[in-house]
Amino acid sequence: MGTGHEVSYADPRSFGFKFGSHCKETLFPDDPFRTIRNRHTPVARLKATLDYFVPIFEWLPKYDVRLLQYDILAGITITSLAIPQGISYAKLANIPPIVGLYTSFVPPLVYAVFGSSKHLAVGTVASASMIMANTIGAEVSATENPTLYLHLVFTACFLTGVFQFLLGVLRLGILVDFLSHSTITGFMSGTATIICLQQLKSIFGLKHFTTHTDVVHVFKAIFKNRSEMRWQSVVVGVVFLAFLQLTRFIRKKKPKLFWVSAIAPMLVVIIGCIFAYFLDAEKHGIQIVGELKKGLNPISIHHLNFNSQYLSATIKAGLVAGAIAMTEGIAIGRSFAILKNDQIDGNKEMVAFGLMNIIGSFFSCYLTTGPFSKTAVNFNAGCKSALSNIVMAICMMFTLLFLAPVFKYTPLVALAAIIMSAMLGLIDYEEMHHLFKVDKFDFLICMAGFLGVTFLSMDYGLMLSIGLALLRALLYVARPATCKLGKMPGTTLYRDMEQYPDGTRAPGLLALQLGSPIYYANANYIRERVLRWIQDEDENPDNKGDTVEFVILELSGVTSIDMTGLETLLETRRMLQSRKIGMAFVNPRLGVMEKMLKSKFVEKVGKGFFFLSIEDAIDGAYSLRREMQEKPLQV
Amino acid sequence: MGTGHEVSYADPRSFGFKFGSHCKETLFPDDPFRTIRNRHTPVARLKATLDYFVPIFEWLPKYDVRLLQYDILAGITITSLAIPQGISYAKLANIPPIVGLYTSFVPPLVYAVFGSSKHLAVGTVASASMIMANTIGAEVSATENPTLYLHLVFTACFLTGVFQFLLGVLRLGILVDFLSHSTITGFMSGTATIICLQQLKSIFGLKHFTTHTDVVHVFKAIFKNRSEMRWQSVVVGVVFLAFLQLTRFIRKKKPKLFWVSAIAPMLVVIIGCIFAYFLDAEKHGIQIVGELKKGLNPISIHHLNFNSQYLSATIKAGLVAGAIAMTEGIAIGRSFAILKNDQIDGNKEMVAFGLMNIIGSFFSCYLTTGPFSKTAVNFNAGCKSALSNIVMAICMMFTLLFLAPVFKYTPLVALAAIIMSAMLGLIDYEEMHHLFKVDKFDFLICMAGFLGVTFLSMDYGLMLSIGLALLRALLYVARPATCKLGKMPGTTLYRDMEQYPDGTRAPGLLALQLGSPIYYANANYIRERVLRWIQDEDENPDNKGDTVEFVILELSGVTSIDMTGLETLLETRRMLQSRKIGMAFVNPRLGVMEKMLKSKFVEKVGKGFFFLSIEDAIDGAYSLRREMQEKPLQV
Repeated sequence: MGTGHEVSYADPRSFGFKFGSHCKETLFPDDPFRTIRNRHTPVARLKATLDYFVPIFEWLPKYDVRLLQYDILAGITITSLAIPQGISYAKLANIPPIVGLYTSFVPPLVYAVFGSSKHLAVGTVASASMIMANTIGAEVSATENPTLYLHLVFTACFLTGVFQFLLGVLRLGILVDFLSHSTITGFMSGTATIICLQQLKSIFGLKHFTTHTDVVHVFKAIFKNRSEMRWQSVVVGVVFLAFLQLTRFIRKKKPKLFWVSAIAPMLVVIIGCIFAYFLDAEKHGIQIVGELKKGLNPISIHHLNFNSQYLSATIKAGLVAGAIAMTEGIAIGRSFAILKNDQIDGNKEMVAFGLMNIIGSFFSCYLTTGPFSKTAVNFNAGCKSALSNIVMAICMMFTLLFLAPVFKYTPLVALAAIIMSAMLGLIDYEEMHHLFKVDKFDFLICMAGFLGVTFLSMDYGLMLSIGLALLRALLYVARPATCKLGKMPGTTLYRDMEQYPDGTRAPGLLALQLGSPIYYANANYIRERVLRWIQDEDENPDNKGDTVEFVILELSGVTSIDMTGLETLLETRRMLQSRKIGMAFVNPRLGVMEKMLKSKFVEKVGKGFFFLSIEDAIDGAYSLRREMQEKPLQV
Repeated sequence: MGTGHEVSYADPRSFGFKFGSHCKETLFPDDPFRTIRNRHTPVARLKATLDYFVPIFEWLPKYDVRLLQYDILAGITITSLAIPQGISYAKLANIPPIVGLYTSFVPPLVYAVFGSSKHLAVGTVASASMIMANTIGAEVSATENPTLYLHLVFTACFLTGVFQFLLGVLRLGILVDFLSHSTITGFMSGTATIICLQQLKSIFGLKHFTTHTDVVHVFKAIFKNRSEMRWQSVVVGVVFLAFLQLTRFIRKKKPKLFWVSAIAPMLVVIIGCIFAYFLDAEKHGIQIVGELKKGLNPISIHHLNFNSQYLSATIKAGLVAGAIAMTEGIAIGRSFAILKNDQIDGNKEMVAFGLMNIIGSFFSCYLTTGPFSKTAVNFNAGCKSALSNIVMAICMMFTLLFLAPVFKYTPLVALAAIIMSAMLGLIDYEEMHHLFKVDKFDFLICMAGFLGVTFLSMDYGLMLSIGLALLRALLYVARPATCKLGKMPGTTLYRDMEQYPDGTRAPGLLALQLGSPIYYANANYIRERVLRWIQDEDENPDNKGDTVEFVILELSGVTSIDMTGLETLLETRRMLQSRKIGMAFVNPRLGVMEKMLKSKFVEKVGKGFFFLSIEDAIDGAYSLRREMQEKPLQV
């Protein structure tokens, strides 16, 4: 019956070897330097290194000129989105609207050089703008001290860049992994909701509002200032919003007509400008953007402000907004890459984002990343390479040099409609419903983010949601599932008897499958659970008095073990031994076996109690059982 | 070849059922109410409930009077330890020494009623005393405002009690599991070190010292006040310490002579008193304890101070000291129970500790738990039940009523020697060395605790160590080990090819074993890793150009999966499909399968890609491969 194979007791690998391989798994799971290593001459290796770190060297020489037309078309399309979005999000961040335009000039050029995604379109995002406004606004008022406020925004952008760059260089992409899908869904939906609420100020044409973002304060503020409401503004806002939503609806029904929704915001701005200019809208209570200066980005490197009085606010704004923006950017780059079967290296992307924000902050730009809407438009417009970002930058340059003053008349209510329309698409009811159906805890994590953001504040919502997700991660390992194995009829397979009820248990033997690492956080639980399995079996009337005399622990699923885990296994064995119940171990994995050997666990238990398969263990159990009863083992 | 069994696609269990069983696993892994449930009449059930919640009802009626002599002997022995320890630790906590004696009167009585350990001896512990002194001392000076300070200590003790009681009632024993063995070793050793350092004040007979606990500050303080040093004090201290260490050495060599080391501290106190009384020690620079009032514990319930000004300090002291004391107490109770094959319910013990501290705080007691030294002495003295605690309480009552004033002359240097001797035994070099050999990360966690406590402060050291341990717990799940499976010659077993190099891979097929849950924190990693396994195989010259055409994922070790995990598996499959590589799943466990069914994962992938064993999957792979090439599947 037996397999004739023994468990491997090979000497543990050296600490250096294991440490190296751990580091590799933790920091370089995707083995990024493979292509460099595979080159044989130093020159080729240098070339490969350069190609790796500065992707434009790799793709530009190979660029097929026939693709240029696609990139130009895509670049123009995203420019028509970048102008209204730039102005809108700059207003959201409480900085001069022109900065939003500057921000679509320098960063896309930097990304085109260092970025590795073909489809990502660079731009500002609403959530990061909102975080900036909240965090820095808490320290310095944007209305009372606009210059200082603006300089702090540049500084925060610089710090974001440094943070992202360092994360990338230190290969800490692992941190982004800890923002779960559910957290992002909840946080994004919550942020979209509060951003919509903030737009009610412009839609209603209010002059006074609240600096708070939560639902309760916003509705209070609207109620308090209801006398300032202007019907003209509301009408214009609703019309624009309806138009924008209609174009989105069209895109959804006919994806080929994506360009209708892509140019819609630009159309809204143009119509708004014309309307405001000819009808003297300001007199009718419709506020406009106001003066926009011609000219390219002024240099702002000397404006970076590291004064310790504001440093904690700028660091917080930079880190939180940076983490959110980066997660969005990487996730989006990745999803589009998958559609085209490319692969994106998250760490390299972080370096590109970092450089883009650092250099941006020197040229009057604020935080950029790869926003979903722009990237989707870029993709649909048929972009073929990062060249579309360069085209956008060139178009933006012309806008800044010649057209900027034209946008002076843009009504704020048009911008509000553009933002609201973008945000309504981000509230992901369907995903929430899906989470509710499939996984209640994921739903809880998502709702904590959503409700936390809408009713408390952005950072509390985010922390709450991440905290719950971490708690769950810890619970996963604190209470790993165990199951009783039964032999499937006519095979040598052992499977969970709850899942496969036709499995049978060998008399007097109980085989349990453990999963996940055994370590301090779950060691006690595993001991209790093993004891309870035995009790359950002994008390189960179906077993007709067949008591457990031997327990077999199947360890194939145990990926690692620590000292507490080993101690607890010994302790469990001792407790069972005193009740004359034996215990054997099946197939410990490499890392586990090494630790068992080093800590003398194998020596203490005896090699006779380790088996390569359950089949072998059952064969061995009866003879071991006899042996044990004759001469109690020393533990 | 095939096993003829299909994967089970049974309908997912209901949310209610799964939620209930999750709660049970998380909060009641030991199924504590089993005995109550098994009774058949209401009266029997009531009796069982009472027995469960108030253990004295269970054991006292069954008590065998012949055991009484053992308990009396043990009780007297631990009293002789309780008096010097009580006085010493009270000094350590900066409260009047008499409170240390009070604390060995009420709490042991409470524990005897509610506690479930037979061997635990109740008393104060040094680490908790030190935490109290540090945390509350930071708010209110013990020398300038001793009454308020004392009241805050009682309050902290009350809060500790409430906290422990609630943890027990809410079955949150799981929290204690997150204090790993390595954290406790490091923290305890570090605490023992700084407590020894604090004793240098009394040993050197200094009048001025530092309120800091870290090594650097203590040595600076000694150096600064070196002129106050009294050689008489040093000589007495060294002699006492040498004597105590000698008795410990004797106990180690001849465990039967444990009583020598058990009564040694009492002897030191008595000799110290006589010596101080007859030689007028105070004039020679040897400080004494001073006035001790006769009489039982005064009531202190009306002194509990919940003033918001001090509340944060008392809560912090109560929680941190309570958590540490409880962990020590439960761990110790458990270890001795194991020696005698009893089982201890951690949650029930928490309730007992909680009640003992709540009631204690009403009667001028401070924080108590089950200290290691006292419990070991109790065990060695042959205690048979919690009655030994009652005997100790009675002895202590007589001491308080008649003998207390005698201890007025106890020299502080004698107490310092007692504390130092106890603490030297707690610095666990051997365990640290063992950790270093077996697990470098465990060693790091331990050293973070040790060095953090000795060079920074107790709370930073503890947080640092717990933080590292949590980081490790998260890394375990963020980077779960995967391995390539090979078929063991002559069997149907598939095992790790690195561990068992004679395994062979079927041509064109790659079987990978995944372990631990698949979820947001490791989903990206698993995708990268699977892709890298394929690349490694394809580039491995040993395979002679045999490229991977089908990947089989063995999921037996995967205990759970979340939405992000499922999405990522789909994504991986899509990426492989575009490279014409197939992917199948083997033996998903119950919870995983349920989620795969609910989220329509099975539907999207197709039932044909799920197998019960690797053998089946290999059989199926070739035909699936053909099918896939003919007609690409919709994903």
